[in-house]
Amino acid sequence: MSTSISTADLSREFCKILPRASVLDREEQLKPYECDALTAYRQLPRLALLPSTNEEIQAIVNVCRRYEIPIVARGAGTSLSGGALPHSDGILLNLAKLNNILEIDPHNRTATVQPGVRNLAISEAAKPYGLYYAPDPSSQIACTIGGNIAENSGGVHCLKYGLTIHNILALKILTIEGEILEIGGKNLDSSGFNLLSLMTGSEGMLGITLEATVKLLPHPHDRKVMLAAFDQIQNAGDAVNGIISNGVIPAGLEMLDHLTIQATEMYCSPGYPPNAAAILICELDGYDEELEVQVKRVSDIFHSHHAIEVRIAKDEQEAELLWQGRKASFPALGNLTPDYYCMDGTIPRKHLALVLDNINKLSVKHGLRVANVFHAGDGNLHPVILYDANVPGELETAEKLGGEILELCVEVGGTITGEHGVGVEKLNQMCVQFSNAELETFLAIKNALDKKQLLNPGKAVPTLHRCAELGAMHVHHGKLPHPELPRF
Amino acid sequence: MSTSISTADLSREFCKILPRASVLDREEQLKPYECDALTAYRQLPRLALLPSTNEEIQAIVNVCRRYEIPIVARGAGTSLSGGALPHSDGILLNLAKLNNILEIDPHNRTATVQPGVRNLAISEAAKPYGLYYAPDPSSQIACTIGGNIAENSGGVHCLKYGLTIHNILALKILTIEGEILEIGGKNLDSSGFNLLSLMTGSEGMLGITLEATVKLLPHPHDRKVMLAAFDQIQNAGDAVNGIISNGVIPAGLEMLDHLTIQATEMYCSPGYPPNAAAILICELDGYDEELEVQVKRVSDIFHSHHAIEVRIAKDEQEAELLWQGRKASFPALGNLTPDYYCMDGTIPRKHLALVLDNINKLSVKHGLRVANVFHAGDGNLHPVILYDANVPGELETAEKLGGEILELCVEVGGTITGEHGVGVEKLNQMCVQFSNAELETFLAIKNALDKKQLLNPGKAVPTLHRCAELGAMHVHHGKLPHPELPRF
Repeated sequence: MSTSISTADLSREFCKILPRASVLDREEQLKPYECDALTAYRQLPRLALLPSTNEEIQAIVNVCRRYEIPIVARGAGTSLSGGALPHSDGILLNLAKLNNILEIDPHNRTATVQPGVRNLAISEAAKPYGLYYAPDPSSQIACTIGGNIAENSGGVHCLKYGLTIHNILALKILTIEGEILEIGGKNLDSSGFNLLSLMTGSEGMLGITLEATVKLLPHPHDRKVMLAAFDQIQNAGDAVNGIISNGVIPAGLEMLDHLTIQATEMYCSPGYPPNAAAILICELDGYDEELEVQVKRVSDIFHSHHAIEVRIAKDEQEAELLWQGRKASFPALGNLTPDYYCMDGTIPRKHLALVLDNINKLSVKHGLRVANVFHAGDGNLHPVILYDANVPGELETAEKLGGEILELCVEVGGTITGEHGVGVEKLNQMCVQFSNAELETFLAIKNALDKKQLLNPGKAVPTLHRCAELGAMHVHHGKLPHPELPRF
Repeated sequence: MSTSISTADLSREFCKILPRASVLDREEQLKPYECDALTAYRQLPRLALLPSTNEEIQAIVNVCRRYEIPIVARGAGTSLSGGALPHSDGILLNLAKLNNILEIDPHNRTATVQPGVRNLAISEAAKPYGLYYAPDPSSQIACTIGGNIAENSGGVHCLKYGLTIHNILALKILTIEGEILEIGGKNLDSSGFNLLSLMTGSEGMLGITLEATVKLLPHPHDRKVMLAAFDQIQNAGDAVNGIISNGVIPAGLEMLDHLTIQATEMYCSPGYPPNAAAILICELDGYDEELEVQVKRVSDIFHSHHAIEVRIAKDEQEAELLWQGRKASFPALGNLTPDYYCMDGTIPRKHLALVLDNINKLSVKHGLRVANVFHAGDGNLHPVILYDANVPGELETAEKLGGEILELCVEVGGTITGEHGVGVEKLNQMCVQFSNAELETFLAIKNALDKKQLLNPGKAVPTLHRCAELGAMHVHHGKLPHPELPRF
């Protein structure tokens, strides 16, 4: 990577573009940017920049291209996979000031916003029109749409309403060449290759989002929230499959395991059955009669899979209470442990019980507790590894355990991310999930759009060299001879 | 393009891979492949090949790569934009024999099929499970999923259920390097760049589809079909906007103009009001009570936009009759004219009346009749230009008129394709819709995946040279100073 210009000179270049106060170069100014929500990785950038217009960003990119300076763009820094970790030779591009909602178009049910707009702020702006933006990552009060696009973020309601990629209609992208691409539109389709989807989830490696047009949805007419408790994980997993294969698409279908239930009960007393091995929280939405039919059907499925309790919230207040525990589960788990490490992998739903059982075995093997609270309906696991960073070696053990959990996901035919992205966290597991030909294709696309590797370099796609050194065995899309068999 | 090997030698090479009968080299054997459904363009390939296994296709690709022979893959040849037009130096790769349904997975609600499987055959195979494949191009009885993927095909029900791209979960792709990429999976998300969406709609220019896993949906509980007639196009257009902005998402919302109404009445007597300027056909689906609420709401919207008649099909038989005219409208129009040319563009719904009015003006200017029958709900127009190929100059006039209609779509902020692809038909309009930077990005991706331009060369993305020669003015995403103003 280039060091052809001193940081002081570089700073002077940027001061020609930005007000002095928007060029941060002192260590105490840079410190807040040294990590995102994956705090195990920390790195100071050379400089952090706070542009407030597209023209400033364009000028910054032109300087970086000229001097071959890596650029890491950042929204609210809530990435759980290190997507916004600074590069030691590079600048950190903070897009927080680009936080205007440019248009709410109720006729086309779209919102056009700048990248620094918070996820929840879109729904707030759309509220007067009876509309909202569906993807709801748990960080939605803080995280920005630019970051959501980079990581293809999900949330509790993605089972029915899709991930970020299913809710983005158009993007204005700045390339490393300083060119603006306008891709997609307010229509379903566009011509040319699908750059819109290629950019979404590309973790800032192919371009910088300057503007996004997102889909807005009308609020559902009504909802019902149900809880079912099980004394065996297997039964809870089977009930999830029973619901989905029955043709019901819940707005959300979440699972909490025993440890998580206990933690949330201690934290905020949502009234979960304390002795259950697992509970499911199921939200259904729609019209009255349709809802009733669905509630009955789901309730029957719970019972037929030996639920030890089925509860249907009788009003909005009780519904909120049922959700409250789920929403508080991460801080609740945080109360049990000095540190935790939240994983993110996806598996075919039918393997839920098998995988949870094997996660438990891995937990015993490594001597670290693992709690499970996750989007069961779409098979998106969030194993939470509890550890203590002050105990020498525990962070490393947690990372090793996390890596093995992800590899387990790939072995049963799943993927190493559901909604958090790859970032720096899962580079090694990319070698397991993808063949050399697949990785080469990713790298060819990266080279086509950013030949000098200046946009968020070192993230999301490992080099073939790294995979070779690691000696990782590519698992052929879950097609191991006997994926049903436990490995231990 | 290479001619480093004679066609006879090339044929001998392929005979080492395929049975002799699967290597077609005589003119009468090649003739059936000289065009797809865009019959105005015709070209014989050097050879046509009929492989029946992935291994054969891989071996064919390896030969083509070695001798730099262009490859045009083809399904049923129903492309309306010339996507499957052969290359004069190349081979035509007919994938019709790869027509096995490999798996129906009711638990994950997916089907895994070979590329030559017909669109409708997927729904037929899924029927015993109460499931179906949603995208329904009008050619669905014949067209194949491989072609649907290449062109990102749509259909009447895409308004609610999405285009092909919204219903594809995983692909097995053969690259020009002879490598197999397995992309996507049965989960919502995958890691790495989104090759799945990049491949879908890439018109055979980035890889060859060997296998696809598609989403299956449960059949809707019930449906209602309504007809509304208007004596002014403007009112029909406003009613479409009224429905969508009201939060109703019909399963289909189609418009037929006066000429189309008359043609279908003559053809199959569906009972459409013969004097209406336009009719809308609206299909709603869902549960009983929800359906009733929606039917009432849509009916009120029709009336408030001065519908001269609103009809609600009282049973399935009447519903089928209302659809019958729409489905027969292309053959019906064919009865009015020796030849017709079906266009495909998409516009923001709010400009429906303005655009139809201007299409009418273009029709008068060029002296050719234009009928309009289209997916009004998603703004996807299908102007049908009636002409006579035996009248010297009429085909050229039809093409010119068609081009101007597409440019009109771009001017009001739309795109030059809704569901038919670009193919060879709309290369010039690509220059209008996209900036040089955008086209360069497409070309960079093409180069990254197919440096020697062997996969379906000359389609979908124009060269910058072509655009420069054409002198086409890039319209900045519809942002003309006064897009509301008619141009004539």
